Amino acid sequence: MIITVAPTGGMLTRREHPSVPTQPEDIAADVAACVEVGASAAALHVRTADDLAACDPELYRRVNHLVRARTDVVLNNSSGGGVSVPMRAPLGDGMSEISWPQRLAAVDGGAEIVTLDAITAWASIDGEEVLMNTPPSRARELSARIAAAGARPEWEVFNPAQLTRDVPELLADIDDGRPPIVNICLDIDGVFTNAVRWSPALLSHMVDSLPGSAVFSVSVGGRTPWAALAQAVILGGHIRVGVEDHPFDEDGAPRSNLELVEQAVRLVRALGHRPATVDETRELWYVKRRVR
Amino acid sequence: MIITVAPTGGMLTRREHPSVPTQPEDIAADVAACVEVGASAAALHVRTADDLAACDPELYRRVNHLVRARTDVVLNNSSGGGVSVPMRAPLGDGMSEISWPQRLAAVDGGAEIVTLDAITAWASIDGEEVLMNTPPSRARELSARIAAAGARPEWEVFNPAQLTRDVPELLADIDDGRPPIVNICLDIDGVFTNAVRWSPALLSHMVDSLPGSAVFSVSVGGRTPWAALAQAVILGGHIRVGVEDHPFDEDGAPRSNLELVEQAVRLVRALGHRPATVDETRELWYVKRRVR
Amino acid sequence: MIITVAPTGGMLTRREHPSVPTQPEDIAADVAACVEVGASAAALHVRTADDLAACDPELYRRVNHLVRARTDVVLNNSSGGGVSVPMRAPLGDGMSEISWPQRLAAVDGGAEIVTLDAITAWASIDGEEVLMNTPPSRARELSARIAAAGARPEWEVFNPAQLTRDVPELLADIDDGRPPIVNICLDIDGVFTNAVRWSPALLSHMVDSLPGSAVFSVSVGGRTPWAALAQAVILGGHIRVGVEDHPFDEDGAPRSNLELVEQAVRLVRALGHRPATVDETRELWYVKRRVR
Amino acid sequence: MIITVAPTGGMLTRREHPSVPTQPEDIAADVAACVEVGASAAALHVRTADDLAACDPELYRRVNHLVRARTDVVLNNSSGGGVSVPMRAPLGDGMSEISWPQRLAAVDGGAEIVTLDAITAWASIDGEEVLMNTPPSRARELSARIAAAGARPEWEVFNPAQLTRDVPELLADIDDGRPPIVNICLDIDGVFTNAVRWSPALLSHMVDSLPGSAVFSVSVGGRTPWAALAQAVILGGHIRVGVEDHPFDEDGAPRSNLELVEQAVRLVRALGHRPATVDETRELWYVKRRVR
Repeated sequence: MIITVAPTGGMLTRREHPSVPTQPEDIAADVAACVEVGASAAALHVRTADDLAACDPELYRRVNHLVRARTDVVLNNSSGGGVSVPMRAPLGDGMSEISWPQRLAAVDGGAEIVTLDAITAWASIDGEEVLMNTPPSRARELSARIAAAGARPEWEVFNPAQLTRDVPELLADIDDGRPPIVNICLDIDGVFTNAVRWSPALLSHMVDSLPGSAVFSVSVGGRTPWAALAQAVILGGHIRVGVEDHPFDEDGAPRSNLELVEQAVRLVRALGHRPATVDETRELWYVKRRVR
Repeated sequence: MIITVAPTGGMLTRREHPSVPTQPEDIAADVAACVEVGASAAALHVRTADDLAACDPELYRRVNHLVRARTDVVLNNSSGGGVSVPMRAPLGDGMSEISWPQRLAAVDGGAEIVTLDAITAWASIDGEEVLMNTPPSRARELSARIAAAGARPEWEVFNPAQLTRDVPELLADIDDGRPPIVNICLDIDGVFTNAVRWSPALLSHMVDSLPGSAVFSVSVGGRTPWAALAQAVILGGHIRVGVEDHPFDEDGAPRSNLELVEQAVRLVRALGHRPATVDETRELWYVKRRVR
Repeated sequence: MIITVAPTGGMLTRREHPSVPTQPEDIAADVAACVEVGASAAALHVRTADDLAACDPELYRRVNHLVRARTDVVLNNSSGGGVSVPMRAPLGDGMSEISWPQRLAAVDGGAEIVTLDAITAWASIDGEEVLMNTPPSRARELSARIAAAGARPEWEVFNPAQLTRDVPELLADIDDGRPPIVNICLDIDGVFTNAVRWSPALLSHMVDSLPGSAVFSVSVGGRTPWAALAQAVILGGHIRVGVEDHPFDEDGAPRSNLELVEQAVRLVRALGHRPATVDETRELWYVKRRVR
Repeated sequence: MIITVAPTGGMLTRREHPSVPTQPEDIAADVAACVEVGASAAALHVRTADDLAACDPELYRRVNHLVRARTDVVLNNSSGGGVSVPMRAPLGDGMSEISWPQRLAAVDGGAEIVTLDAITAWASIDGEEVLMNTPPSRARELSARIAAAGARPEWEVFNPAQLTRDVPELLADIDDGRPPIVNICLDIDGVFTNAVRWSPALLSHMVDSLPGSAVFSVSVGGRTPWAALAQAVILGGHIRVGVEDHPFDEDGAPRSNLELVEQAVRLVRALGHRPATVDETRELWYVKRRVR
């Protein structure tokens, strides 16, 4: 079972959570500690010096470099970015979207994997609305950019419609015989429209709808992700944990990435499996280490 | 079982289909013929004189009036409109959306029911992309407008995320104790992103996820809608048929609204039920006839 | 879609139902009429002169001969028999079972298909209990007898346990590369223990659990079989109807085999399919006509 | 989450497994150790001095007494017994059943809970077949005996047919307003016919089919029970582990009851829950401690 840590995300600041790593050294240190206890992949976001979301390839290169200096781990850079003001672009009629040029730029950070968010959905944060705006033409452009950069896409799937339409349509463009890497994103419906809430039946259905050869993970927002993550393992999938996804516990107390990965390892072992090594993860995902 | 006819839709023209009714007299005549054989509700779109999509309340009033002059039937006016050029508004960066002011205007056509498309999804037509753009703030605005006009909303649900988020959130605003009217739109994924493709497991799940008191219908795009429509009936739902949804048969031959309603009646009877009368439909949906 | 008619069954008498055919000429006439309107297979039971259940091969041969004199149709002889006194054998402690020697004898009736009831379940009729008693050793014996007689078995499946255990275990013995013929028997739980009641989720699960190549039908007891039969068609299966399975309508009025087959044909057509011919049925089931 | 330990079962001997407790002192010591680490109920079988299955009430009383001398725990005595020769009774035609008088006698052992095996199924052990033979009349008799003894029944459910028929039918007889206690027995299909094999979809369906107020546990045979047990917890159920159910690990090495309960506790905690105390278990099951 691959355990991915998602340490940072595109929203939470250090004011809101004491142990979210936002600066390059902090991210690298946190990832290294998580790999020590069982994580074998890291799903990274970068932030400006004052914690705001960014997709700056220079920042991604710096974080990737610092992580690799400490530990071997599969690196995944988010091209989704975040909803902070510097990442917003005007859309007309007073609306705004997450900047498309910035999303595209994330591809150049040098990671083995770049997220492919083919979703169009409204995020509502602090009373403001920002559109994650990905018409099919943009999804194809991003997909081609990722392939050109020598990275592999990770399909972020927010709802089952993407499994029967967006993923197969785009896969047809870039099919290289390697199994698609899919991350099913559950329980982020407090922020995003078009994003499903976990139920055992729905996750079963989504897994049944995956392209045959897909290797899938599940990430789960909210405070009680363990049941959904356990179901992912039961159904043959991999799991992602971290402060990005579920920063607070049932009582609202902040959790650290290290605690979350340790809990994930206990879950995987309780289900009769063991965490994958980094080499096994590379093999499962058909990615080679990229040196820069 | 309520059989709704959707005779026209927002896309197909008479050049593409010989019997799609687009002009007021034609729509009224077609609806009346369908009511004769078993339909008890009509889900209407209006068109300009040259068949282009419109949401013009004046046109809606005219069509509604002509229909009522011929037959008693529950009237549902679409606020979704269509993707024709006159309904498009620029969105920046070369993109366009379906005009929001025009969508809002549909409310004033005088129907008992107005569709509430709370979805944000890209439509791809003839190589062009248009956004059905409905952030939560717009959905609330439309919902309030429908209530203020004395109509009831029909929730157009494209994917299960809307059932756990959009519908409950908006329902909380307008809760008047009446059961919500939901239409689950399947198999329009050839045009829209975020729109699910039917499978027995998915439709079961969506029906299980409905708000407890909801009265639901199912509409199905494509050429072979009958199995999905039968499942809707099996699961206790109602059905919508018509040239809007499935204009051509398996062999590509055009079907008329009358043929489609007759086939729906045969299906309902084969499953051991009978078509609802107009009065029964009004009771199930808690709508009174609106006279204008 | 194969429509099988099950005209007689092992329980209902002419005192209880005016049009259940129990005598050879009546069965043959009824089957011929049903084939005329769309049935292509007949699942037969035989009865004594006073309507009691029997498995007498001489009687089966006579009925099969009379049917074939009138119409070409795929013939299936039940080895399940019935619960009437002449078919009961003592079991000790005041209990009784359906006679095993009589069940075995049905194989020699000369039909292309013989039912293989590998189930062990108690039938409760008129306050009496009779065991359908089929330990694995008997199931293997029956299966071997059917193969030796040159017939094909139809697996009567009462619950999902049989699909993961009995059917695969026995199939391993007789595997001849031909797809297994399975009939899923639903809603006979009013009589038999270990027999499931239809729900959409359960039937879906059972169909998903079938051996990969199986060709399956569904039969449904009770008064309202149409929804379950429709789901069978939706899931790619075939259907069985007849006085054996659902002799009375919702209001308790008796239905004839002809009416039931006509209703089945309407259902199949309403779902966009057409009834299979006898030749198509033989091809789907890999059975040749047996001439005697 | 209630963790029940099933330390002994009705089949495995000390020759086959080094740490299966079969004698009263050994069972009591094992149960006490398991309660120490998180079990709050014990599902007991008793054995003769040479390890053969028994339902002797005297033996049950002795074991129950010894357990209670060491630890407070909810006691459940099996009325299913086992397949050893001393528990077999002849059934005619060379067949044998598990002795009904012995099964009934288990009720008098003084436990708070007695299993109610309303199933009829063939067990195949070492090439021999024995029938667990429970016609509805016997099930009612056993149910009444359990109620008369002041105990509560635990419904052992082997397949979904029992949930829609046997359980509701018998519940109607004994309804006392207390929630029924159900144990869903999975993956014993290597021994029993009519016993389902776990799949996520099937367990979901069975849980959905439970009588509304039921409190359910899941027990799982075989070597890899953890995924099915995790699903039980996810679906709101309780779990049973022990040498009776899954005596050997994936590699065929024997596991002790203590190890299995410890693993169950880790699973429950990894899923974000904690083991129930004995008092909480009594409350959930509506049972009072019985002192003798």
